[in-house]
Amino acid sequence: MKSIVCTEPGKLIIEERSDPIPPKGWVTLKMKRIGLCGTDFHIFKGLHPFLEYPRVMGHELSGEILETPRNGRFSVGDKVIINPYLSCGDCVSCKKSKSNCCVNLKVLGVHTDGGMCEFLCLPERAIYSARGLTLSEAAMVEFLSIGAHAVSRGQLLAGSRILVIGAGPIGLGVALFASFEEACAVAILDVNMERVVFAENLSDAFSGFVVEDDVDERLREFTKGDMFDVVFDATGNAKSMEKSLDYTSHGGACVFVSVVKDKIKFSDPFFHAREMQIIGSRNANRVDFENVIDKIHSGKIPSSELNSHNVNLLDLPRQLPTWIEDGSGLVKAIAHL
Amino acid sequence: MKSIVCTEPGKLIIEERSDPIPPKGWVTLKMKRIGLCGTDFHIFKGLHPFLEYPRVMGHELSGEILETPRNGRFSVGDKVIINPYLSCGDCVSCKKSKSNCCVNLKVLGVHTDGGMCEFLCLPERAIYSARGLTLSEAAMVEFLSIGAHAVSRGQLLAGSRILVIGAGPIGLGVALFASFEEACAVAILDVNMERVVFAENLSDAFSGFVVEDDVDERLREFTKGDMFDVVFDATGNAKSMEKSLDYTSHGGACVFVSVVKDKIKFSDPFFHAREMQIIGSRNANRVDFENVIDKIHSGKIPSSELNSHNVNLLDLPRQLPTWIEDGSGLVKAIAHL
Repeated sequence: MKSIVCTEPGKLIIEERSDPIPPKGWVTLKMKRIGLCGTDFHIFKGLHPFLEYPRVMGHELSGEILETPRNGRFSVGDKVIINPYLSCGDCVSCKKSKSNCCVNLKVLGVHTDGGMCEFLCLPERAIYSARGLTLSEAAMVEFLSIGAHAVSRGQLLAGSRILVIGAGPIGLGVALFASFEEACAVAILDVNMERVVFAENLSDAFSGFVVEDDVDERLREFTKGDMFDVVFDATGNAKSMEKSLDYTSHGGACVFVSVVKDKIKFSDPFFHAREMQIIGSRNANRVDFENVIDKIHSGKIPSSELNSHNVNLLDLPRQLPTWIEDGSGLVKAIAHL
Repeated sequence: MKSIVCTEPGKLIIEERSDPIPPKGWVTLKMKRIGLCGTDFHIFKGLHPFLEYPRVMGHELSGEILETPRNGRFSVGDKVIINPYLSCGDCVSCKKSKSNCCVNLKVLGVHTDGGMCEFLCLPERAIYSARGLTLSEAAMVEFLSIGAHAVSRGQLLAGSRILVIGAGPIGLGVALFASFEEACAVAILDVNMERVVFAENLSDAFSGFVVEDDVDERLREFTKGDMFDVVFDATGNAKSMEKSLDYTSHGGACVFVSVVKDKIKFSDPFFHAREMQIIGSRNANRVDFENVIDKIHSGKIPSSELNSHNVNLLDLPRQLPTWIEDGSGLVKAIAHL
């Protein structure tokens, strides 16, 4: 089968590999859509903290069932969503139903070869039905589920005032799922005016703010002096993550959705006086995937607006560098097979 | 009335002050017991981050009703517990029932003159009945409620493995309330062997650990390799607070009970991979006070063991410096009036 392999930073090639053979009880999928995400760009650019090359990228995936074991839950031809987080089921996290931060987690396309290829074999538990979704919507479930998971981590109360920092796809997912909570006001902050405008056009529930000299004052005004009940940082920038505490109200929480290869510092008297929380949010669980699927079914996700770019998978080696050079207008690019 | 005044760091004197006059609707209390806490020692030593001198210390308080407004909830002679956290009732925290981190919080004995005096006037809402408690137990409710509050912040699940770092009074309170949760195993870690032994003798639920070269390995063994579901730091030491993350399992949480005038740093990839939380815990709320009162009623608090030292309040100016010089065996000292 044809696979797109990142052989080393900056080098993406089409490689002929042998078709995978499913272990007993696994299904074989024909890959259909592969969403591109910041992680993929990081891998291509050589900025990922622990990646081993060569690597087949791709973890935002949808496909069709090609082969299924007898008595399996799926039928040949079923359209499916793939949960790329392969957990061990046996560690302290898995036993607490937190397979998203499994001690032995392997993520498709990161720790092990992913979906930028023709066929993939997976255990049934990593596959959810995409009935009622387009294949492209199905490939967007994973990144949106990261937002849904982060919002569940934030434990929003009705009427919470929410700030999402970073208006990339992950931040937009967070903002959307925050807006589904009861009576929550959602502000979105980004350094990039284009992204803020895009975000504001996505939902009437969003108020956009661009990082400018007086932005702290404007955010304070927006919250009538209190600052925000929950702040989500989806920037992957240490300075922004540290700054997010300043935007948090007394008794509030910061949720760190992205990760940065750096130390985070905070003033303990500031943190203590406000009885704050800093909450990590990593990946997503089945319940988050199901939440996203449900919201797509009910028409609450502006999926066609989010899916800004498309490409044939075999054209990706040529296309990817041009997107890295000029990412303007790029929200969610999806490769098709 | 006689008041004990800390006029400047290192100087504690008996001062004659005029008796307080209660504002309309307030009660007047005759002070009976004043517990001494780390904050008082800090104030005396001049180490408190923002204290203005002169200051009457004392925030772990019990007393008797001396005068009460008509139709008040209390009667003259009632023994009462004082909640020293005077909140505004109107800020973002108070509106979320988090008066413990009120934006405008004034703590008796810290931001405003406290209970080391003969009489105190307070609003009724700052006073709870001490029926069924000794006056000394009543004065211990406040510090124990800080532990109860921290445990509620930690959201323990049944069967959680808990580590409490710092076996001072606050840490012991945390450990006791953690041990009241269902099937929780509680380990206590301190640099001081004497304190660890004292802690172990307080409850069969406690396992003591002294900070030694192989302590990380021993804590890992204790948790069968997982480390702890929730770690409470009650040391007020930045290095210890940072280290507490190493003792936390995947999917676990650190609760910072004490405060340190310093920055706290952590590695974000470490934090993110484990989907950790760092949870602030400040003071306590009415519900925590009620929880403590309930546990004292039911005989679950070893109050006489905790109350290691007693002193007549008027002898405190002479006694306090000797305790600072040699604090061995000191757990909870209580001044009597």
